[in-house]
Amino acid sequence: MNILEIIANKRDKKELTTEEIRYFVKGYTNGEIEDYQAAALIMAIYINGMTNKETTDLTIEMANSGEILDLKDLDKIIVDKHSTGGVGDKVSLILCPLIASLGIKVAKMSGRGLGFTGGTVDKLQSIPGYRTDIPMEEFVGNVKRVGLSMISQTLNLAPADKKIYALRDSISCVESIPLIASSIMSKKIASGANKIVIDVTVGSGAFMNTKSNARKLAKQMIEIGKLAERETVCVLTNMNEPLGYAVGNNIEVIEAVKFLKGNMPEDLKQVVFELANNMIKLSGKSLDDEENKKMILENIKNGKALNKLIEMVKNQNGDASFIEDTDKFKRSEYMEKVVAQKEGYIQSINAKEVGELACYLGAGRIRKSDVIDNTVGIVMNVKVGEKVKKGQPLAIIHANDYEKLNEAKQKLQKIIKVGENNKKKIPAILEIIS
Amino acid sequence: MNILEIIANKRDKKELTTEEIRYFVKGYTNGEIEDYQAAALIMAIYINGMTNKETTDLTIEMANSGEILDLKDLDKIIVDKHSTGGVGDKVSLILCPLIASLGIKVAKMSGRGLGFTGGTVDKLQSIPGYRTDIPMEEFVGNVKRVGLSMISQTLNLAPADKKIYALRDSISCVESIPLIASSIMSKKIASGANKIVIDVTVGSGAFMNTKSNARKLAKQMIEIGKLAERETVCVLTNMNEPLGYAVGNNIEVIEAVKFLKGNMPEDLKQVVFELANNMIKLSGKSLDDEENKKMILENIKNGKALNKLIEMVKNQNGDASFIEDTDKFKRSEYMEKVVAQKEGYIQSINAKEVGELACYLGAGRIRKSDVIDNTVGIVMNVKVGEKVKKGQPLAIIHANDYEKLNEAKQKLQKIIKVGENNKKKIPAILEIIS
Repeated sequence: MNILEIIANKRDKKELTTEEIRYFVKGYTNGEIEDYQAAALIMAIYINGMTNKETTDLTIEMANSGEILDLKDLDKIIVDKHSTGGVGDKVSLILCPLIASLGIKVAKMSGRGLGFTGGTVDKLQSIPGYRTDIPMEEFVGNVKRVGLSMISQTLNLAPADKKIYALRDSISCVESIPLIASSIMSKKIASGANKIVIDVTVGSGAFMNTKSNARKLAKQMIEIGKLAERETVCVLTNMNEPLGYAVGNNIEVIEAVKFLKGNMPEDLKQVVFELANNMIKLSGKSLDDEENKKMILENIKNGKALNKLIEMVKNQNGDASFIEDTDKFKRSEYMEKVVAQKEGYIQSINAKEVGELACYLGAGRIRKSDVIDNTVGIVMNVKVGEKVKKGQPLAIIHANDYEKLNEAKQKLQKIIKVGENNKKKIPAILEIIS
Repeated sequence: MNILEIIANKRDKKELTTEEIRYFVKGYTNGEIEDYQAAALIMAIYINGMTNKETTDLTIEMANSGEILDLKDLDKIIVDKHSTGGVGDKVSLILCPLIASLGIKVAKMSGRGLGFTGGTVDKLQSIPGYRTDIPMEEFVGNVKRVGLSMISQTLNLAPADKKIYALRDSISCVESIPLIASSIMSKKIASGANKIVIDVTVGSGAFMNTKSNARKLAKQMIEIGKLAERETVCVLTNMNEPLGYAVGNNIEVIEAVKFLKGNMPEDLKQVVFELANNMIKLSGKSLDDEENKKMILENIKNGKALNKLIEMVKNQNGDASFIEDTDKFKRSEYMEKVVAQKEGYIQSINAKEVGELACYLGAGRIRKSDVIDNTVGIVMNVKVGEKVKKGQPLAIIHANDYEKLNEAKQKLQKIIKVGENNKKKIPAILEIIS
């Protein structure tokens, strides 16, 4: 076997064998196969596609390329949650304590943000003192004791995926459904879960722009899950406008905490409840949709979900007083309104453009080495479909740089489109695929 | 414009613009575009193909990536000849002096051999003293004075093609008709010709295994020629068995010299005459096939073609006494016959296998750094379709290593297939495309 044969086979639309995929993943990870050879193979995969078997083989080989987290001691069933990424996506901060408060153990490793979507780790780090980089044993110990821990990826998980992903990014091969599916699933498998709920975001602020592509991606991941014995459920959610109202680090943590205190924006509520429902079902605790939603609401009302968050924050050295009183979070120097220039209905709020604007204000990274400003961002006041009057506030911009503030005001004015058409509200949940 | 967009366009089957192709060729040649990015683009081109316009643009940009030989001083029309490579291909050694003897100027730059096909430069260098690496002014001066010069590629011709070709070789992207066509034509254009005759070899010992692929390649090159204003004629010739009888350096030079002395193997004669006919036609000297063939035969019979070869050899410091008396060429230590094991007809003599065997004996290079042994090789005694008796000599192996000699005898016995079927002779000329 050699890499030239493997490239030629995929080039000629032949199905690669398990051994050929293993040979490629091992050889590329250890540097025996050159970047340009991997690039040729990845492009051939992009154009000619992969069968479900090939995609699953690639997933498993990438998962096996590094350490695999062993969570068997925690529970028979370990449910994990993943999102394909979005703008204003503070779901994990709410969902994980909520699920843990129901007695289902949650061991969550999250990523940092890059580009226009924020990362959960960045949001966690805006809580003063909170440690996201604890050793593995402490992580597992925390989950055992508290039922919940949320950290950054400290293990060397799926290094092959990291290397292949970086290459794809530099050769215009990101938007391939089998490659996206295997990338996501390899990390989830390496993270030790055996049941997985995936929030597949759809729209202007997501990887998948159309419902039909999102559905293909979901089906592909579910198929991999089946072949790899990891039951997977996908929830397709709307990402045409930002999720909830806040986009930025401190302000998203504040929105998440307020949610757990009962102040739930409708779209965010639907997404959190639907993902929670599916996690509860996969855990085996209860299969009844109505009962599950009741349990979820109950644990928000009685404060158990919030208390679980506080418990976790304290347990990982965070200053929980910030959760108890979110006014303690530092604010940006400038906070300025953008108001409606005319009466009408909100036609669209392009999520990607809002994400890029928040990033420009300092809330995100363009390069991996960029330092994030936790205080900046945008808090929307409106959602698509709402009626607004002239002069009514549409959003508040949080900024620390006067020039950027003014530029952001002009840009946001254009992003939040007001028109005469009586626009329908976008449903938050598009489809559930299992 | 950036390379990611260009890769994405070709990935998505869009036609690349002239500017995009220029950006890629320039950027890759000067190192701004990475190997892995070029690899992804080349694989996308391999799979999705290129239009005639794209292929011509690529050809011209590769030609323009280095020096372009200016031969305008020599003549208005400069006819060049190229072969896609074969085993036993000593055509240039015969054809160039022949054409020059007719008063048509020939400025020929040739390549070295790599793999199982020999290179004209290696054959020229087996003439003691002959200089293949003379400065450009001397080359052009020689053509002016003698009407003929044959040298190795000393100029930095089409460096982009060199770099892209090496990459293609390491990512399984060699066998692409638009890429092969643009590679050949870029070098011909950089070599200063405005009329080109191409010997497109077809069969086991050629790049193109089938007539239909050879025809596609020919049409592609003719199309590039049209768009680039270089009139091109392709002659499809048989390369299922070696051309003529000798495969090796000294022995091929001897066969070429004997040809010019009137001893013409039938297949070699057909190929030389057809290529010469087309070169004469393109030069504008005469458009009449019959008249051209008469002129060609005349200049062989009257010794003018041979004298032109001698004149060129002397003019480039070669010892012309070797041409006058080919017995002066050094022979190998061993010369042993392979004889027919049974009566029958020659069914096949796989050209590639003969080429590889000659290479194994030392006549060719596997790596660029290998040193060639000019004395070794194989002289066939038979052609496909001939009837042979048991014990009749089929070939003579020229070797300097006793073990290799014995191995070669066994292998050659298997390569020259004798059977009962009355096999038809393979025609040397398959088709002429213009």
